[in-house]
Amino acid sequence: MITLDEREDPTQPEILDGALSAFLEFGIRRTSMGEVAKRSKLSPATLYRRFAQKSDIVRAVAIREAHRFIADVDARIDQDASAEEQVVEGFVAFTQGVRRNQLLTRLLVTEPEFTLPLLTTEAGPFLALGRDYLAAITRRLQAEGKLQPYEPEPVAEILARLALSLVLTPDGVIPVDDVDAARTFARTHITPLVRLT
Amino acid sequence: MITLDEREDPTQPEILDGALSAFLEFGIRRTSMGEVAKRSKLSPATLYRRFAQKSDIVRAVAIREAHRFIADVDARIDQDASAEEQVVEGFVAFTQGVRRNQLLTRLLVTEPEFTLPLLTTEAGPFLALGRDYLAAITRRLQAEGKLQPYEPEPVAEILARLALSLVLTPDGVIPVDDVDAARTFARTHITPLVRLT
Repeated sequence: MITLDEREDPTQPEILDGALSAFLEFGIRRTSMGEVAKRSKLSPATLYRRFAQKSDIVRAVAIREAHRFIADVDARIDQDASAEEQVVEGFVAFTQGVRRNQLLTRLLVTEPEFTLPLLTTEAGPFLALGRDYLAAITRRLQAEGKLQPYEPEPVAEILARLALSLVLTPDGVIPVDDVDAARTFARTHITPLVRLT
Repeated sequence: MITLDEREDPTQPEILDGALSAFLEFGIRRTSMGEVAKRSKLSPATLYRRFAQKSDIVRAVAIREAHRFIADVDARIDQDASAEEQVVEGFVAFTQGVRRNQLLTRLLVTEPEFTLPLLTTEAGPFLALGRDYLAAITRRLQAEGKLQPYEPEPVAEILARLALSLVLTPDGVIPVDDVDAARTFARTHITPLVRLT
């Protein structure tokens, strides 16, 4: 599990910022370790001490972006609303976030060798991040008496897997582009899974 | 959408058999079109008329394997059992099928450039296959009064996406190796989604 505790390494945010800006400009494949060092104002030796290879930087950037994505979704949920509304608005915020994040969608097709393993065979940490976030919400709603009591992790993981699947393969009958249809989908098919009281 | 109607092209099963045997022996990367032609007892010209490139053969083999996988799961469901039992035994048959299918799991790691796009950004036809199969079961159980009435496709697609996600990323808290735990998981967390009567 990658730690994001930036106190452990004060150079990490600069490296990830430098790498992300280079990835956006040149793509991942054409970004060299030298370019990342230059943009993060570090010597290559210092950069290599922190990240042995480019794929480690890609993974760390992706994990940070996943944290940011979750924080953006979370900011759009009204914790005083009913559980049903929180589920519905959370799902809508997720689908709109995916639509806005066109960089990610593009990278899945243009640089699959970097992005697809990270989000499939190596996706354990990303799923854990989503699962932990959703399980914490479930616990809060259970404590407030808004959801039935049950072990939150398995349901949270079903939802995290559904979310990741919609990022990887938007094709299908689950609405990700139409906000009203996404709302209806969540109300009709996600709420039975999370078991409102 | 790839058609599997073998009446349209009587050489197709031979080509897919030849390709699959070569993939199993050499891997996908090291299998040439010439090798597939030889194993399917066709001239290269005939093979190229049917499949312009190796990736088209890989896709057709994968779709046929997905059909076979679904047929194997389906054979293990007792249509006279309660809806709950059919859901539970279907999920167990799926997880055991994935465990047995070690070729697939291996190919995701050893030949990601062929397998991962097919099961992510290009996975629409695979998800549709799973969704159509599960929607047909749902319709049957609804007609028998064993499930509540609702539009089957969205729930079927949630389950198809969960299944594909467990193939791509087995890591997590959803049990795929332990049969008893898989049974308990399905009984506790899948049945609310399909809404038993």
